[in-house]
Amino acid sequence: MIFMSDVANKVLLIVLDGASDRPLGGTTPLAHAKTPNLDALAFGGINGIMDTIAPGIRPGSDTSHLAILGYDPYKYYTGRGPFEAAGVGIDVKGGDIAFRCNFATVEGGKVTDRRAGRIDDTDELARTINTKVKVPNIEVIFKRSTGHRAALVLRGKELSAAISDTDPKKEGLPMKESHATDGSPEAKRTAEIVNNVSDQVTKAIDKSPINIERRKQGKPPGNAILIRGAGEVPHIPPFEERYGMKGAVVANAGLIIGIGKMCGLDFLPVIGMETMSPVERVKAKVTKALEALKTHDFVLLNIKGADEAGHDGEMERKTRYVEAVDDAFKPLTSLKDTLIIITVDHSTPISLKDHSADPVPILMNGPGVRVDEVGRYNELIAHKGGLCRIRGMDVMPIVLDLINRTKKFGA
Amino acid sequence: MIFMSDVANKVLLIVLDGASDRPLGGTTPLAHAKTPNLDALAFGGINGIMDTIAPGIRPGSDTSHLAILGYDPYKYYTGRGPFEAAGVGIDVKGGDIAFRCNFATVEGGKVTDRRAGRIDDTDELARTINTKVKVPNIEVIFKRSTGHRAALVLRGKELSAAISDTDPKKEGLPMKESHATDGSPEAKRTAEIVNNVSDQVTKAIDKSPINIERRKQGKPPGNAILIRGAGEVPHIPPFEERYGMKGAVVANAGLIIGIGKMCGLDFLPVIGMETMSPVERVKAKVTKALEALKTHDFVLLNIKGADEAGHDGEMERKTRYVEAVDDAFKPLTSLKDTLIIITVDHSTPISLKDHSADPVPILMNGPGVRVDEVGRYNELIAHKGGLCRIRGMDVMPIVLDLINRTKKFGA
Repeated sequence: MIFMSDVANKVLLIVLDGASDRPLGGTTPLAHAKTPNLDALAFGGINGIMDTIAPGIRPGSDTSHLAILGYDPYKYYTGRGPFEAAGVGIDVKGGDIAFRCNFATVEGGKVTDRRAGRIDDTDELARTINTKVKVPNIEVIFKRSTGHRAALVLRGKELSAAISDTDPKKEGLPMKESHATDGSPEAKRTAEIVNNVSDQVTKAIDKSPINIERRKQGKPPGNAILIRGAGEVPHIPPFEERYGMKGAVVANAGLIIGIGKMCGLDFLPVIGMETMSPVERVKAKVTKALEALKTHDFVLLNIKGADEAGHDGEMERKTRYVEAVDDAFKPLTSLKDTLIIITVDHSTPISLKDHSADPVPILMNGPGVRVDEVGRYNELIAHKGGLCRIRGMDVMPIVLDLINRTKKFGA
Repeated sequence: MIFMSDVANKVLLIVLDGASDRPLGGTTPLAHAKTPNLDALAFGGINGIMDTIAPGIRPGSDTSHLAILGYDPYKYYTGRGPFEAAGVGIDVKGGDIAFRCNFATVEGGKVTDRRAGRIDDTDELARTINTKVKVPNIEVIFKRSTGHRAALVLRGKELSAAISDTDPKKEGLPMKESHATDGSPEAKRTAEIVNNVSDQVTKAIDKSPINIERRKQGKPPGNAILIRGAGEVPHIPPFEERYGMKGAVVANAGLIIGIGKMCGLDFLPVIGMETMSPVERVKAKVTKALEALKTHDFVLLNIKGADEAGHDGEMERKTRYVEAVDDAFKPLTSLKDTLIIITVDHSTPISLKDHSADPVPILMNGPGVRVDEVGRYNELIAHKGGLCRIRGMDVMPIVLDLINRTKKFGA
């Protein structure tokens, strides 16, 4: 980092998704990996540990990204439905009612397979649903996700998320009728719409070509959708309005792209990523993020691979991935006039194969930061740095102060 | 600590009551004492300092234990009455109205001695009160404490703690009538019951053998009770319900036993403790706690002696006691598959002879913790550890995360 001015004018916030860990054999992937570039950024910056939500609270990637972007997840995280819908690429709007769905098999009025034999080829079914299912004055948006999963959004006036699921949770039972859980007329109306949509879907797709084909092959058809996890899409104050900065997100995980968009960040896709190796992807994303700093004041770059290795419990793979990421970070060490924050949204310990609440490392490098004595970037040493222990919701206030975009409280 | 698995399945939470201090001559009892076992546990664990309530808030043992057990004292600490009653061994229930009482001397309608000449032999008086004092539909439970002190509990429907004391606070004045402080019918009714109980008590014990004897000896009789500090016993969600762990408490301080029971911990007494030396007691309690880990998932072990030495302002005694405690902790250094937390509920500085808000040291030792470079257990060095500075209310969330009993917030 070459300091050309005393105050940065751009912000690059990098989230190494799930990269931090618990020690195994006395070390962690971040501590064990050779990371000369991350270490140089730590050496020239201020370091600390961070509870993305609060001590002991195990974050999802959704709640932690909201917190790091300064949106209190206890206020804005309204359930799985809205974030699942945003994650599969539906451009959700504040007030939409969103659901998670499964394609399922219903025969003789009963759910015989809640995942329709883990059906995967659901493009045609989703197209048919979007074409045929109609509700007066309500926009019905359906989108497939991976495997048997999908998301549903209802957009219109006088809707409510206070309704129950149609998913009976067990096979051998009929689909449930959705009903209002709070007695309001909006909830009653929304439950009726959900039941209506559910009926229309079954009629629309039961005899679709793919299901006829599946029946021929002895596979359970995907001839119904189970609807659950109703949530109202939160009205999130747009990033630019809130912070006075034009922001962008560079990511390839649907959930992160969805959250970025919900917060008003411009999503900047990397073209051709499908055919790249994981290492090439990281490099392409770093390049994209650096380009984005020319057009945007703030860039969120999410890098997902370490989290996946953590979920798979693969220490060696996680370590090597961290090294590849570090290699891609070489250009960051000579970036000018930019406040770089490198952190993690949650630990994904190899030992748990799931998220944990162990605090994550955070470094801030750029003009004006109080450089401390920490010279390595990892979760075992970061607590010795000048940031001590902060929370996810502290990041944006600290950033805004460092780049001198904060108003004084008092005189 | 021998790591047999990546995640602990038992939790031992040890509170060295009042053990931390402010430096005198540059050192503290914890820092000055030779504590090889505590130091070994610190060396193999993660360390930090803790504000049991919040920075600068001086905790009682009651409020701090509530916080460390994850029960917000600002919500569950409903005054001295309920905790005093629990502390003297009344099995209080949520909704009970509890009071602190003094035995006093009333002559000619006036309180002539608020402590009845510091009367100490009150067993017979308490028995008489429990036998003779009757209120329709209300259970009246009275229990003596040390010296002239006692506790009173009213159990029944439509009671309220919004009532005033009968204690005139000054001698030479008549006892006060209790009255409602919020105008509610429940408070009015409860004040009437308190006045009724107060009258009945005086009638019941004025001429009791012990008081006849005291008058003969020229001592002021304990012929009345002054009632104060009304509080409603809080409805505390039971520990097992809240955390999914069967918990036990090993302690000999009444207040800690009472709080443990109120939180749903099984109280496991150490038999024969009355005849043991302080050092023998600590060893017996450690043994009991280790046994308890076989039948319970979570054990709270409270060790009181350092607090007493602090209240008495005895540096040397406090230091030696800490060394005796350390000696009793030898078996902890080879404990398997257990998350050990060693902390303090509040500082009791020699210089103050009372509690202070100076943060206390905390260590966590067990599978999965991020071992830091701190190699001694004391309040002067703990801040260098990986926990940095946490709060009492953070302990249980961090513990639940470390033992993998936490749900994810988000996806």
